[in-house]
Amino acid sequence: MLSPQSRRHFLPYQTSPQIADLPDKDKAVVILPIASVEQHGPHLPVYTDSLIVQEVLDRALARLPEEFPVWVLPLLAYGKSNEHSAFAGTITLTSETLIRVLKEIGGSVARSGFKRLVILNGHGGNTEIADFVIRDIREQTGLLVFALHVYLRVAPPSAGLTEDEQVYGIHAGDVETSILLCCHPELVRRELAPASIPAHLKTFKHPPFMGPLTFAWLTPDITANGVLGDATVANAEKGERYLSDAATQIAELLRDIADFSFA
Amino acid sequence: MLSPQSRRHFLPYQTSPQIADLPDKDKAVVILPIASVEQHGPHLPVYTDSLIVQEVLDRALARLPEEFPVWVLPLLAYGKSNEHSAFAGTITLTSETLIRVLKEIGGSVARSGFKRLVILNGHGGNTEIADFVIRDIREQTGLLVFALHVYLRVAPPSAGLTEDEQVYGIHAGDVETSILLCCHPELVRRELAPASIPAHLKTFKHPPFMGPLTFAWLTPDITANGVLGDATVANAEKGERYLSDAATQIAELLRDIADFSFA
Amino acid sequence: MLSPQSRRHFLPYQTSPQIADLPDKDKAVVILPIASVEQHGPHLPVYTDSLIVQEVLDRALARLPEEFPVWVLPLLAYGKSNEHSAFAGTITLTSETLIRVLKEIGGSVARSGFKRLVILNGHGGNTEIADFVIRDIREQTGLLVFALHVYLRVAPPSAGLTEDEQVYGIHAGDVETSILLCCHPELVRRELAPASIPAHLKTFKHPPFMGPLTFAWLTPDITANGVLGDATVANAEKGERYLSDAATQIAELLRDIADFSFA
Amino acid sequence: MLSPQSRRHFLPYQTSPQIADLPDKDKAVVILPIASVEQHGPHLPVYTDSLIVQEVLDRALARLPEEFPVWVLPLLAYGKSNEHSAFAGTITLTSETLIRVLKEIGGSVARSGFKRLVILNGHGGNTEIADFVIRDIREQTGLLVFALHVYLRVAPPSAGLTEDEQVYGIHAGDVETSILLCCHPELVRRELAPASIPAHLKTFKHPPFMGPLTFAWLTPDITANGVLGDATVANAEKGERYLSDAATQIAELLRDIADFSFA
Amino acid sequence: MLSPQSRRHFLPYQTSPQIADLPDKDKAVVILPIASVEQHGPHLPVYTDSLIVQEVLDRALARLPEEFPVWVLPLLAYGKSNEHSAFAGTITLTSETLIRVLKEIGGSVARSGFKRLVILNGHGGNTEIADFVIRDIREQTGLLVFALHVYLRVAPPSAGLTEDEQVYGIHAGDVETSILLCCHPELVRRELAPASIPAHLKTFKHPPFMGPLTFAWLTPDITANGVLGDATVANAEKGERYLSDAATQIAELLRDIADFSFA
Amino acid sequence: MLSPQSRRHFLPYQTSPQIADLPDKDKAVVILPIASVEQHGPHLPVYTDSLIVQEVLDRALARLPEEFPVWVLPLLAYGKSNEHSAFAGTITLTSETLIRVLKEIGGSVARSGFKRLVILNGHGGNTEIADFVIRDIREQTGLLVFALHVYLRVAPPSAGLTEDEQVYGIHAGDVETSILLCCHPELVRRELAPASIPAHLKTFKHPPFMGPLTFAWLTPDITANGVLGDATVANAEKGERYLSDAATQIAELLRDIADFSFA
Repeated sequence: MLSPQSRRHFLPYQTSPQIADLPDKDKAVVILPIASVEQHGPHLPVYTDSLIVQEVLDRALARLPEEFPVWVLPLLAYGKSNEHSAFAGTITLTSETLIRVLKEIGGSVARSGFKRLVILNGHGGNTEIADFVIRDIREQTGLLVFALHVYLRVAPPSAGLTEDEQVYGIHAGDVETSILLCCHPELVRRELAPASIPAHLKTFKHPPFMGPLTFAWLTPDITANGVLGDATVANAEKGERYLSDAATQIAELLRDIADFSFA
Repeated sequence: MLSPQSRRHFLPYQTSPQIADLPDKDKAVVILPIASVEQHGPHLPVYTDSLIVQEVLDRALARLPEEFPVWVLPLLAYGKSNEHSAFAGTITLTSETLIRVLKEIGGSVARSGFKRLVILNGHGGNTEIADFVIRDIREQTGLLVFALHVYLRVAPPSAGLTEDEQVYGIHAGDVETSILLCCHPELVRRELAPASIPAHLKTFKHPPFMGPLTFAWLTPDITANGVLGDATVANAEKGERYLSDAATQIAELLRDIADFSFA
Repeated sequence: MLSPQSRRHFLPYQTSPQIADLPDKDKAVVILPIASVEQHGPHLPVYTDSLIVQEVLDRALARLPEEFPVWVLPLLAYGKSNEHSAFAGTITLTSETLIRVLKEIGGSVARSGFKRLVILNGHGGNTEIADFVIRDIREQTGLLVFALHVYLRVAPPSAGLTEDEQVYGIHAGDVETSILLCCHPELVRRELAPASIPAHLKTFKHPPFMGPLTFAWLTPDITANGVLGDATVANAEKGERYLSDAATQIAELLRDIADFSFA
Repeated sequence: MLSPQSRRHFLPYQTSPQIADLPDKDKAVVILPIASVEQHGPHLPVYTDSLIVQEVLDRALARLPEEFPVWVLPLLAYGKSNEHSAFAGTITLTSETLIRVLKEIGGSVARSGFKRLVILNGHGGNTEIADFVIRDIREQTGLLVFALHVYLRVAPPSAGLTEDEQVYGIHAGDVETSILLCCHPELVRRELAPASIPAHLKTFKHPPFMGPLTFAWLTPDITANGVLGDATVANAEKGERYLSDAATQIAELLRDIADFSFA
Repeated sequence: MLSPQSRRHFLPYQTSPQIADLPDKDKAVVILPIASVEQHGPHLPVYTDSLIVQEVLDRALARLPEEFPVWVLPLLAYGKSNEHSAFAGTITLTSETLIRVLKEIGGSVARSGFKRLVILNGHGGNTEIADFVIRDIREQTGLLVFALHVYLRVAPPSAGLTEDEQVYGIHAGDVETSILLCCHPELVRRELAPASIPAHLKTFKHPPFMGPLTFAWLTPDITANGVLGDATVANAEKGERYLSDAATQIAELLRDIADFSFA
Repeated sequence: MLSPQSRRHFLPYQTSPQIADLPDKDKAVVILPIASVEQHGPHLPVYTDSLIVQEVLDRALARLPEEFPVWVLPLLAYGKSNEHSAFAGTITLTSETLIRVLKEIGGSVARSGFKRLVILNGHGGNTEIADFVIRDIREQTGLLVFALHVYLRVAPPSAGLTEDEQVYGIHAGDVETSILLCCHPELVRRELAPASIPAHLKTFKHPPFMGPLTFAWLTPDITANGVLGDATVANAEKGERYLSDAATQIAELLRDIADFSFA
């Protein structure tokens, strides 16, 4: 959840007439955070994506001027995580249901008189749906709609990841573990953190997740323990840096969104 | 959000292997809190139902032994609130979508090896859907499924409500305002709290909400300011009592649920 | 089926121009009876709910003035009966389909120029769907929409049921058997009527169906023969009284509905 | 409604154990009558199709041996009548909903242990849906499923219709009016019966409804009063003949269905 | 694919402004060819229906004046073929999906400013859906919509089919094999062409496909090799005649469609 | 359409038994080409994406050994093009329908005994749906499923595009126009080819389509003539190079797919 200083931006803390009469409503940016409840290996909580998106958002808000017109909706923790459904603790919506939920929230935001909506996504498995559904929401409501994916912001090339981690470290590896160690160390079972880049992945002709070949995978296809990446090298300092970088970028993008115009 | 001492019961703080191997899984009670984001008059935040369900749950957990096997899922703040969709700040799912979301969460809970699921509902408009969908979830998963409606627990006949409030005070009146004054006074715009029992309601032959005649209403049909009840008489002491009573009841029912058996 | 004197109220016996030009159309009450085709134990036909709702309606119409503007639609015998789907003779719609059917009938009633629609429901398993779908119909059509549940009217506290029957007698017990003995004795296999309050139900901490704990059940969870209640004490005289009471109440409520107004 | 002698074939009058244990269940034919509630011009009730399908079925049953294993389900009066939705009194389901209803009833019939299901259809607008959905039901349940369209049986070439009536008389004309005059004369407003073959239809290059060109029409496209055919020449004697012919054919086909086998 | 001289009628070869400004748009006929990818026995390709509908269309276009305003959409090769889904190479949509696809294409055609749409269908299993969905498209868009079934045009009574072939030859028999031998002989494995009228079909009381009894069948119910008809008597000359007859008829009907009017 | 030498890979030209018994079925790659029918400015046909995907595929097949086990399904020309629905000639499916179509084709491919499916996509608006639906297909069928986007292969950084074109040239600009000039010059209205990078796009803080900010756009939001890019600099030579590069890459990826394995 939001830190005390960010709560002023939590839309549901406002009354209905306040929301109706918000100043600067044409510029105001409504943020819908979405994430997941899904397995993150033996060492991270299933809430990892949700914690990260909230932490990044909280920090991004702290970087904006107090009067910046940004309004945060409640986290939609339930996402599309069917790749992980073989693992306990994964709570997943189907694609079709997630699409419906996002469209209906979009419709409600438009009815409330806002003009700009951002889906701030913390889970890779939601990416494509967020990316296409924003067009459908725009078509149906006229809203300006944006998708921002937190995990694309947390460890830029400059972040010092090993080459392997850049290629294979997509789930519960260095990045996510470091972030959790930074902001929720009490939830990390560090002693169980694996270095898990299954050998067969390295035999792939193409790097598996960002190369030229997009293939469908379910988690058990590629890793027995649910982890892809080296969680043993994680530490809180890296996490702080990842979070800080991401927050800075997101804050900047929120400013851009408030100013965005097609005309 | 859950208080520190209750967080031990927040399921998503566990890792996937922990969830797979939880002790006492046959007894363990998984709780899905659901509520709403919807107008609550000029004086209460649109998050009122969500705040109340979380507060009651937090207090109920505090009344259970530490080792009691209860696991809380993230709040589904988005409910069915189409009665309020004419008011800014109302974010509503359609009936069909809410049904899908609940069924799919139920399916995921079953896949995670649990046997008992409670939908803990804080919003009147979700009531019927929660009440019938639990059967569909049981049919599809074999889970034992329960529905508990927080607002039915917060102000029992003994609560000292005026007669009018008992009959008409269903939304943002004495009960909800008192509770918010107790647990989130900073979110209440007390100076705007209305006494709002529209005169025409009293001309109804039958009491409108719990009498023998069930009629469909949208909020603008019955109240211009979105409030039904007398919020001016609310105070934190009453709120404390309402919450306390509800928490005690819910805690008791959770014990019963852990022991429930058809055989 | 409606008795001869009630047929004047059967809407489908009218021609389209007659329906277009009905007098008093703002007051006119359109009734959609819904019920079920589902197992009712070894002694009652699977049509029991349908027979009861039609009998009560017929008697209610007889209590209204001839010129009272009430129009009955054909019975939707097919309801949501998945609790009984393990028993032969149960014909059930899914929740999703029943919702669609009710909404589309509501849309058609509105297009025909009516202003008031009552879903008159004879089956417990349809209750929640009728209760929430009326709001959705109102939202989509502007109709005034009402839900009346016949089984809530047939045996009020004053009806002289045993205490056990009041608590456990929800399906094919004294009430339903008595009513069938009264109006369709030829369809009752009285010699097979059981007294069936499974012992384990009495071990429940809370009374199972109307107590504070709402749990999902499928019929095989709670009774092997499909009956809940004591059908052996049923008789036609009681049935007559139950029906008569219910008809009187329904007639009264129909008058109220014709006069109902939000303004 | 079924006549007294036919009621022995009404499935819902049986108890669940009786249905489970019906003799000759492999041969037994379950009939689902479907029809419509839709405008039938100024002289016929909107229930016309429903009345006809029930009358024909009743007469067909009377032509079968008492012990013939045929079981009738409740009429689904609500069909797909969107061609008539511009006229008051038309109650229509969408295509999608009718498909769902038929499939779910089919599923329930299979679960009850039957092997043969007939959709006995009384409304032209349901024809195609009945004709294709039987395959989907067979695919999903393994039932033998059949579609019989009553209106294709009621006035064979030998029936003595005028040539115009054979071509244009598809709705509320000689055939339907004669049948209603025979079996429900009290519901016919004979003085308003039109001869209604709109002149423009005769200018069509192809006969409009059974010629080589299948075009989509909504009723207002082709007739202002909702009638296609000459209702002025109708009389009860013809109706008797039409009904009798149809009943004989349907009875014969039901025998064939009981004997039907792929092997 | 369309032959070079027909390509001028292929709508997608036009630019968007050309389509916006087409002359004679009120008369212009848009054709959506639909067919199947489904087993056609051991001797014909699974694309048979698709090839035939394209060949007939190509020939029909050749019979129309160059300036005739007809515009062909891309073939929808994927149809409803669940009767054949037990055979490799069958690619089938569900009924529900095919309905959606057709409605959405219809909506797009209307948005493009056309007034007339023909579904030109080459597969028996699509027939009913095409026949009813045209009404739904008309209702939703106001388009004039038509369904033409190619296979009803390719071998009229005068075509010289044997009596058996007329009755049983519905799939991969003389007609389809002859046509393929005419237009795509390289795709026919003539040496494997069976004479396949399973003996048990002849024991049916009624001719199975066009008699008075409509029964649901899946292909394995009636033929082991997937063929119904005598493919051994097929030859290219017959195919030429069938195609030629069909093309002439379709061309004529397209003229009629361009002139069709309800007024 | 496929060129003669590629037709040996067109799956629907095979018979059902051939498909059942194809050699090397574990390796065999089934390709489903999908594209669009949508406006491509004043100079390119609405079939542009469909033409390109087919041309690239045809050329890729030519680069593979004759015996390479690759099987092409019919093009699904209808895609998700709602961004262009304001322009005539755009035929679009909804997201929900495209998802269903892809899943059902995937199910059919699996039922036919194949193990590998590639969605070969030629339209940007289909990208996200293809990318997530492959996982759902894998989950439901066990197939290995891949998504390849042709337009990501046709003009790599080395292609010599201007910087502006790399950033803004996403629709009907240099790349697509050059390709059409190469393979279908007769369909290009070169004299109308615009240079269309609307000035306001250059005022955007971030490059609009591949920068850090993903925003929803409908075509009229960003360009009046439907073009984004400079089509005036297109020529056939470039088109040849783009096609050749893409074909080489796709051929290589198809080899990789045939060899792909998780184990």
